[in-house]
Amino acid sequence: MTTALCPGSFDPPTNGHVDVIRRALAVFDEVVVGVIANPSKNPLFSSDERVQLLREIFHDVENLSVESFDGLLVGFAADRDVDLIVKGLRGVGDFDSELQMAQMNNHLSGIETCFVATNPTHGYISSSLVKEVARLGGVVDRLVPEEVQRALTAKVST
Amino acid sequence: MTTALCPGSFDPPTNGHVDVIRRALAVFDEVVVGVIANPSKNPLFSSDERVQLLREIFHDVENLSVESFDGLLVGFAADRDVDLIVKGLRGVGDFDSELQMAQMNNHLSGIETCFVATNPTHGYISSSLVKEVARLGGVVDRLVPEEVQRALTAKVST
Amino acid sequence: MTTALCPGSFDPPTNGHVDVIRRALAVFDEVVVGVIANPSKNPLFSSDERVQLLREIFHDVENLSVESFDGLLVGFAADRDVDLIVKGLRGVGDFDSELQMAQMNNHLSGIETCFVATNPTHGYISSSLVKEVARLGGVVDRLVPEEVQRALTAKVST
Amino acid sequence: MTTALCPGSFDPPTNGHVDVIRRALAVFDEVVVGVIANPSKNPLFSSDERVQLLREIFHDVENLSVESFDGLLVGFAADRDVDLIVKGLRGVGDFDSELQMAQMNNHLSGIETCFVATNPTHGYISSSLVKEVARLGGVVDRLVPEEVQRALTAKVST
Amino acid sequence: MTTALCPGSFDPPTNGHVDVIRRALAVFDEVVVGVIANPSKNPLFSSDERVQLLREIFHDVENLSVESFDGLLVGFAADRDVDLIVKGLRGVGDFDSELQMAQMNNHLSGIETCFVATNPTHGYISSSLVKEVARLGGVVDRLVPEEVQRALTAKVST
Amino acid sequence: MTTALCPGSFDPPTNGHVDVIRRALAVFDEVVVGVIANPSKNPLFSSDERVQLLREIFHDVENLSVESFDGLLVGFAADRDVDLIVKGLRGVGDFDSELQMAQMNNHLSGIETCFVATNPTHGYISSSLVKEVARLGGVVDRLVPEEVQRALTAKVST
Repeated sequence: MTTALCPGSFDPPTNGHVDVIRRALAVFDEVVVGVIANPSKNPLFSSDERVQLLREIFHDVENLSVESFDGLLVGFAADRDVDLIVKGLRGVGDFDSELQMAQMNNHLSGIETCFVATNPTHGYISSSLVKEVARLGGVVDRLVPEEVQRALTAKVST
Repeated sequence: MTTALCPGSFDPPTNGHVDVIRRALAVFDEVVVGVIANPSKNPLFSSDERVQLLREIFHDVENLSVESFDGLLVGFAADRDVDLIVKGLRGVGDFDSELQMAQMNNHLSGIETCFVATNPTHGYISSSLVKEVARLGGVVDRLVPEEVQRALTAKVST
Repeated sequence: MTTALCPGSFDPPTNGHVDVIRRALAVFDEVVVGVIANPSKNPLFSSDERVQLLREIFHDVENLSVESFDGLLVGFAADRDVDLIVKGLRGVGDFDSELQMAQMNNHLSGIETCFVATNPTHGYISSSLVKEVARLGGVVDRLVPEEVQRALTAKVST
Repeated sequence: MTTALCPGSFDPPTNGHVDVIRRALAVFDEVVVGVIANPSKNPLFSSDERVQLLREIFHDVENLSVESFDGLLVGFAADRDVDLIVKGLRGVGDFDSELQMAQMNNHLSGIETCFVATNPTHGYISSSLVKEVARLGGVVDRLVPEEVQRALTAKVST
Repeated sequence: MTTALCPGSFDPPTNGHVDVIRRALAVFDEVVVGVIANPSKNPLFSSDERVQLLREIFHDVENLSVESFDGLLVGFAADRDVDLIVKGLRGVGDFDSELQMAQMNNHLSGIETCFVATNPTHGYISSSLVKEVARLGGVVDRLVPEEVQRALTAKVST
Repeated sequence: MTTALCPGSFDPPTNGHVDVIRRALAVFDEVVVGVIANPSKNPLFSSDERVQLLREIFHDVENLSVESFDGLLVGFAADRDVDLIVKGLRGVGDFDSELQMAQMNNHLSGIETCFVATNPTHGYISSSLVKEVARLGGVVDRLVPEEVQRALTAKVST
């Protein structure tokens, strides 16, 4: 049985994230979604809110769990006994820093990172761009799942 | 009649910006320069100062107007009824995030973005590098128009 | 009136090419599709066949013409009195050589090149990949227009 | 049980290839190494020789098989009923064309491609560079497995 | 006699930095290590601490000096009468901004920048990633020299 | 005394090549220009013609020599006892394959490669593009030295 870890800030989860997680589910037996509790940039949604949103989006998927974590990703990966890390790649811009992280994590614990190419239709979607669009009053449907759309509207209208 | 929108922070306008706007003027009938009033990074020059500098630089050009805007670029583009967005590309480093923005704007409103290659001579000029050079006492002539040079000297010497 | 030139080998035309030409048609008054008669790689379709395929694809578009040319692109552009060159960009891989060509053409004749981002859905489609898939017996619908699909099937089955 | 397909020309197999296959073996239950029988560039080693070299290198690995194939990769993947394709990425230069191939294969058959970052120590090793070094009389130990070193020496000295 | 300047924030110095400086020492007669006293990001180590760490690491090297500087790099280079700037390149991600800086410095003072490729084994090591790993409790040996490891442990445990 | 080796096909030498060699001359004591006698692509100019053109271009420079070589670059570098290899970088497109070559050469013999950024004004000039322009009847002055312009005109008019 192969267990994959999909880590990220998910602030908020986008259709791009959902696409990558669904691809991991299609290939691996179990998927653990690991939510970075305290990302370097101050998050819009709390760690609990982000975990909750992901659980709602995947509420009908059995072989998936969502948890937040503090500390090193490789520590969390060891605790959950996952076999590999799975990350989505949107384009070359992502690649260089993701490669650096993957090699560092491999150096720290020997864990492997597999990159899956996101659906090209979602290539331009990032959490930060979605937040900026929402803040400026733009419509974010087709960019994020319905649950996130509602949460985002509530958040930016306050 | 084709109207092009050249958006940017222009904090401050550089010879690279002037080059891109002049290229747009050579190809399109009308050019609207759209100054992002409140960019994500705290600007050195106020929105009014940046509009004023651009108006001085292009004071002898008839088919060009300069305005600042708040909110989504695609909203401003719709208000001004422009036909397309024109942006300069200095190199591969710009490309990935600019492509993402262009695809997002196309998703939000259907508007097209055209990229023009900047004159290679200006490829290394960016507003942030110009500000850093000026702040550290370097000479910025040949990097920015004369009007900007004066304004920059006044700003950093205070 | 602004006339745009969309140059290429079009061996054969793909849905990506069609997308770029349709974007040019939406923004500019006239579009000239310029077919490089003798590209550096030996083409699968003759120059006449490629012109014919493009004319069929755009048979209901009025402000578009298709012609093949020999010699320098800037010479053809001058002969047809176009205002600018329009090219599609699929990703960073295209960018570097396209930028080099654009700067060379600008050096040779002063002409401007505008790059439009292709629809991300077509990002992975290239003429050479389409030909390889067809040759190996793969299905190319949704990758090329119907006219091209038929021509390609006829070509590779001989 | 998850079966991964590692495709390539392997003309000849390098330490970089061996590294990627060993990484796939560590994560997945079964690995099929698929040797492209007739790559676009004329190979130095015959299809049989390349299969034989890979079998020698991995002779002591149980859950691995080596086969050559003609035609589309997605056809071979379907025949062997593999769950995903695994490819190594050395750097950004590889990335763009590999992403394009992965999206095309996903379009053609729905199969997923996972990219693993090669050990940075092998980043500069490619089959073509190894062949060039050998042809010019350079020493290729530490670049390729011992079996390949012998075969390469025999090949270029003829 | 050729004197090379190796500039950087060195917050803290990593095995990657040490590798680049040792390569410069192998090729040039004298090396000046220039520590940017006040980098744009708030440093973890003071300017004095960073100079001290570098001096300890290279205490047995004769033709090397370490100094911190304020202001423009080209000003410091002129004061020390160096012949060229030497910088390490880890990958494409570094390249674009480094090229921009090199061309700006050449514009400002005519000084040349030479880039050396870092040892691929150190490609994934950056000061910021090392600090993050240390802060989260990871082991940083093999990433930084022993002197830095001790200093980092002391710093993050306070 | 530091001796730098500037290797290349130089088929033909361009203003970009001349710029890189002049930069090397400004920094290093001696420069050896190494002409690859038999590059992988069939050259337009013979090895002797390319050596001759370079000697004419630099006829008034004392600390420079031009020679052609067969075999491995690192072998030639060892024969001439040079201290390092100097190469120009035009942009990101060059970078990946040049980095790979540099790391391979370092692996083979321990020699260091330094990259200098070419003058941005010459960034779009490559030997192959220059040959294509000349063959199609374009004007190549300002792209190549006068000696090369004459030789190119004679070559393509035959």
